[in-house]
Amino acid sequence: MGITLRYFLGVKPSKASLLLPFLLTFVLVGSQGESNAMDNVATERMAEESHRQDSANLLIFIMLLTLTILTIWLFKHRRFRFLHETGLAMIYGLLVGVILRFGVHVPQSMSDLILSCAVNASPATLLVNVSGRFYEYTLKGEVSRSKGHQVPDDEMLRKVTFDPEVFFNILLPPIIFHAGYSLKRRHFFRNIGSILAYAFVGTVISCFIIGLIMYGFVSFMKVVGQLQGDFYFTDCLFFGAIVSATDPVTVLAIFNELKVDVDLYALLFGESVLNDAVAIVLSSSIVAYQPAGDNSHSFEAMAMLKSFGIFLGVFSGSFALGVATGVMTALVTKFTKLRDFPLLETALFFLMSWSTFLLAEACGFTGVVAVLFCGITQAHYTYNNLSPESQDRTKQLFELLNFLAENFIFSYMGLTLFSFQSHVFNPLFIIGAFVAVFLGRAANIYPLSFLLNLGRKNKIGSNFQHVMMFAGLRGAMTFALSIRDTATYARQMMFSTTLLIVFFTVWICGGGTMPMLSFMSIPVGVDSDQENSSSAVLDGSQRRNTKHESAWPFRIWYNFDHNYLKPLLTHSGPPLTATLPACCGPLARCLTSPQAYENEGQLHDDDSDFILNDANVSSMYADVTVSTDASGSRTINRKHSSTTSTGGGPADEGLDHELALAEHEVSIRGTRLVLPMDDPVEPPTTVTLPPPPSPPRSDPRRHRL
Amino acid sequence: MGITLRYFLGVKPSKASLLLPFLLTFVLVGSQGESNAMDNVATERMAEESHRQDSANLLIFIMLLTLTILTIWLFKHRRFRFLHETGLAMIYGLLVGVILRFGVHVPQSMSDLILSCAVNASPATLLVNVSGRFYEYTLKGEVSRSKGHQVPDDEMLRKVTFDPEVFFNILLPPIIFHAGYSLKRRHFFRNIGSILAYAFVGTVISCFIIGLIMYGFVSFMKVVGQLQGDFYFTDCLFFGAIVSATDPVTVLAIFNELKVDVDLYALLFGESVLNDAVAIVLSSSIVAYQPAGDNSHSFEAMAMLKSFGIFLGVFSGSFALGVATGVMTALVTKFTKLRDFPLLETALFFLMSWSTFLLAEACGFTGVVAVLFCGITQAHYTYNNLSPESQDRTKQLFELLNFLAENFIFSYMGLTLFSFQSHVFNPLFIIGAFVAVFLGRAANIYPLSFLLNLGRKNKIGSNFQHVMMFAGLRGAMTFALSIRDTATYARQMMFSTTLLIVFFTVWICGGGTMPMLSFMSIPVGVDSDQENSSSAVLDGSQRRNTKHESAWPFRIWYNFDHNYLKPLLTHSGPPLTATLPACCGPLARCLTSPQAYENEGQLHDDDSDFILNDANVSSMYADVTVSTDASGSRTINRKHSSTTSTGGGPADEGLDHELALAEHEVSIRGTRLVLPMDDPVEPPTTVTLPPPPSPPRSDPRRHRL
Repeated sequence: MGITLRYFLGVKPSKASLLLPFLLTFVLVGSQGESNAMDNVATERMAEESHRQDSANLLIFIMLLTLTILTIWLFKHRRFRFLHETGLAMIYGLLVGVILRFGVHVPQSMSDLILSCAVNASPATLLVNVSGRFYEYTLKGEVSRSKGHQVPDDEMLRKVTFDPEVFFNILLPPIIFHAGYSLKRRHFFRNIGSILAYAFVGTVISCFIIGLIMYGFVSFMKVVGQLQGDFYFTDCLFFGAIVSATDPVTVLAIFNELKVDVDLYALLFGESVLNDAVAIVLSSSIVAYQPAGDNSHSFEAMAMLKSFGIFLGVFSGSFALGVATGVMTALVTKFTKLRDFPLLETALFFLMSWSTFLLAEACGFTGVVAVLFCGITQAHYTYNNLSPESQDRTKQLFELLNFLAENFIFSYMGLTLFSFQSHVFNPLFIIGAFVAVFLGRAANIYPLSFLLNLGRKNKIGSNFQHVMMFAGLRGAMTFALSIRDTATYARQMMFSTTLLIVFFTVWICGGGTMPMLSFMSIPVGVDSDQENSSSAVLDGSQRRNTKHESAWPFRIWYNFDHNYLKPLLTHSGPPLTATLPACCGPLARCLTSPQAYENEGQLHDDDSDFILNDANVSSMYADVTVSTDASGSRTINRKHSSTTSTGGGPADEGLDHELALAEHEVSIRGTRLVLPMDDPVEPPTTVTLPPPPSPPRSDPRRHRL
Repeated sequence: MGITLRYFLGVKPSKASLLLPFLLTFVLVGSQGESNAMDNVATERMAEESHRQDSANLLIFIMLLTLTILTIWLFKHRRFRFLHETGLAMIYGLLVGVILRFGVHVPQSMSDLILSCAVNASPATLLVNVSGRFYEYTLKGEVSRSKGHQVPDDEMLRKVTFDPEVFFNILLPPIIFHAGYSLKRRHFFRNIGSILAYAFVGTVISCFIIGLIMYGFVSFMKVVGQLQGDFYFTDCLFFGAIVSATDPVTVLAIFNELKVDVDLYALLFGESVLNDAVAIVLSSSIVAYQPAGDNSHSFEAMAMLKSFGIFLGVFSGSFALGVATGVMTALVTKFTKLRDFPLLETALFFLMSWSTFLLAEACGFTGVVAVLFCGITQAHYTYNNLSPESQDRTKQLFELLNFLAENFIFSYMGLTLFSFQSHVFNPLFIIGAFVAVFLGRAANIYPLSFLLNLGRKNKIGSNFQHVMMFAGLRGAMTFALSIRDTATYARQMMFSTTLLIVFFTVWICGGGTMPMLSFMSIPVGVDSDQENSSSAVLDGSQRRNTKHESAWPFRIWYNFDHNYLKPLLTHSGPPLTATLPACCGPLARCLTSPQAYENEGQLHDDDSDFILNDANVSSMYADVTVSTDASGSRTINRKHSSTTSTGGGPADEGLDHELALAEHEVSIRGTRLVLPMDDPVEPPTTVTLPPPPSPPRSDPRRHRL
């Protein structure tokens, strides 16, 4: 045992390389114990030098992002669609990686000194006594043995590598929260069963299929002699868990721009959002049970059951936590008049959402999962309580954070291909991985779709299945999971392979989505509301189908949500005094907001995004036109619904529309909803539909279907 | 010489304590060289544990901020004004500090192991070889010698202390940028001479006065035997530099809410924004020249000149850099059609503004100064090119960042009073510091005001001077500068004293501002535009005064800016074809935006916020009503100006108003501008003023005064 000291004077520490603003200047001491003053000066100079280098490194990334933004604009401006912005960011990252790797020669100015003494452990903090002054060192992690002698390479690596935890703790939360916050809840909940099946069952299937196929390949490679290190079965499973998660970022962007069928969109997006969470929990469960006392890395039934238990516990815990903070925020915004101060409101919203992540991590749950469900809860309840300005502010804030984080991740991915030092590109493993990923995806989509179609009224067509198969892009989450640990040979090989899979799927599958859609004759540019309205207007029986689409557990949940949760947590919904039993009268009066009484008559289109029912299907499509382009510019034109106007006076109607607008704005955000051209702008005269039954105002049974 | 290794198992490293999302999990190794697998598990478990603790610590701060927000709302709701929100954040911080200090007992679970061997220097990176595995350590800084044996205390300190660089690199930039971006440029530039005098000359005077007085006190303490460590003259000067900067945060908030006289506001705010920059440069110059080879820490004329040179160089470099990036952003936003995509535009704006900071730091300039001038440039030029949605987005984004950063700093300040371990409270030094700060402020305000009044038309009254004296609050910048280095005895004493000064000024001076104002019979609730409009309407000669108020260099600059820079960098201003000489025709045509030709006739109210002149003084007050409360909710009612309508057709007028509105929105942001009640809402009939001279459209001389 010995201590090896090395001088890296003039080389900034790797963690700090990208995180200048998050990190402090590391103090380098060069002079060897002369006067205090001289020491101080030298220390300060070096600290300054390192600080400057950190700034310069971060600047590279900022410039990269700026360049990406300008090019994205150019692409959008010229309506060039074959390369998506994330693919673009990756290309720029690649170019900078090549330049840094081959173009920049770092001067070899550091002196290398090796000292040794007896140490028998590596503590977290080290105090070094130099001439009576103590210097504190913190443990950075293990360095792979082979790198001990590759100082110049190591130096390159330090320049542009930052810690993978940054992905999990800074970059992913805003992306995932945004996904939850901007989720199209109506279509999402209509397909919730299928989405859960694909995301949970499908991802687990895919993980095991990929794991098994990879184990076969690895065993073959061992026989052939192509494997230079250990690769256990649990490593294979871990690889399966990593690459099974599809990416919501790219799917969202491409399908949103193409205005593809809403159900297909909901299935793909819902699956990809939820399976990120599944992949995180799955991979950490595999890691957790993997070395349970034995070194065998073999697969055991008991261990697997334990792993499954961990999975369920962590997932439900994170879910509960995310929903809990969302509900808390809703209560706070409902019962304080914070909406008079949009800045305070926005700040509170932001802090509460962030605290979900921290709370989950502090409790040992998964922050990302918690943040996702927190986002959904915030959108469903809290959003209704916010002032209009805060609604805009929060949406725009998370949109911006999401955009920056997303592009940062993709350009960093490009950069890593050349800047990462420990790449292990094994052609056989790579081929195996591509085959496995393909088969794993197929084993997820086709069998599940078959089973789901047995129960679905609205079948998932084979062309939809092919598109879902094709559009299973791998992205940020896969990358983040694989870069988290690159210490061993197996993990390095996984990382390199994963990087290639991400590049391939984003460029080839992402770019090929549009030709694929037209080849599969799936209509592009479809309008979700147009579709609904025509079916509702032309065919009364189809409305019943829509209703029956929703499974009974969700109908029960919908009623509960509409009658109790919404009125309790927001200003919308029927007053609690009408829905709660008479014995709870005083409590109900105390919890119901004054606005709720005003809404009482017009509730039928307020919740329409959630589950379709007879009473509101005809009124939900006509009152708002939102056109959104991918960059988020939004034009909203309200039109007076021709059917809702039968329900109440003009003042109530205004409020009603306001609420409906707020709901719709969240729920249909990200698609282009345009009214059919023949929609009557003038009130009822031209409408041939019978008006929906308008029951007495205080009849609560109407809301219970 | 020896190496001291200590186990801090279960104790997270101090840097990471607050920066969970910015930092990675530190890897702790507990088992001593058994199987690899067991090692891995133990490592992962400990990493997880430390990660959880980090999350919990950060959560404390988030909760603190949430609590502050809710209380701020309550205060605003109940119109309770004596305690400002920053003071409140400090109180909450104090409470949590007390709880952490006395309430929470950290279990002493770590094992402490000391190992030693021969090392003769402290490198930046340390490789430790434990059973054949290399662990990398990074230097964190020097630990003060006394702390070597106070492990439990140290542990407490680690819990809640994060690195001061975080202030400079994360928290201050958004605050300072926001100050620049939301600066009321019209009033700022009208008083630019006085502001520069107070900020530059005044701060330097104050620094030296405080330094000298403190040197007297310190010498006295040495004689009395109250001083337990070194305290050199340069330390005194450094202290002077630290505490001379007044805080814009609190001043802005209090005076904005009270709607005090605009000139007083401009003077105080302008001074406090600029002297932050001065204090940073001044203190770092003092540190830089301090140990120039000799250990004497004495004061030398040459060294001082050198320091002054550094000061000028750094300041002008930072200024140039900030302006340069601002101009670049303006050009990019002008010549691309990025405004079609507000999200991209906002992201670009944010990245460019941030890159200013990084660029300045990378070049060795002061990032904060650069960011301030970048903010001013962005507001003056780039803001005109942004789409209306981006204008809102950028303002709201920086407002939110500013709010969060500000409250975080103040609650952290409160926390530090109890959580910081190396406090040195020396009663004599504290008394001396309070006296010195008081005298230093007096030596800044009164003599300079006297000198300035010799040249000013619009005298600074003695009541204004008293208020400026009283309202010289010390805040975030003073704190950040003093916490930057707390290694020596002198610095620790400074830090503790500074903390008390900040508490005192924020609570006592901040809370006493309103009584002070009424005592000095300074009108509160004054309306800047009302004032202007009445003087302009009632008294023609006063308009000339307003004009002559602007010194000639600024008039030249104004003309240059209006005729060349604005048209070049923005869509507003006269077309360059009209202002540039004929020989530059093709270039001018190429650089002029199509909108500029349309504006040509109506330019007189476009730049009105900048410097008042005859042509526009009558048209600048009637076209916009902005009412802002402190939290940023804004209502804008446009009213058609009764005088500008003589200039052009209705279409042009609309555009003109749009431009004027955009200008005014930035310039008068943060005050409540309400039109006088007798202002005619209907066009010209009731106006008795003669219309301003309307010269032929293409006469460029009109714009050159």
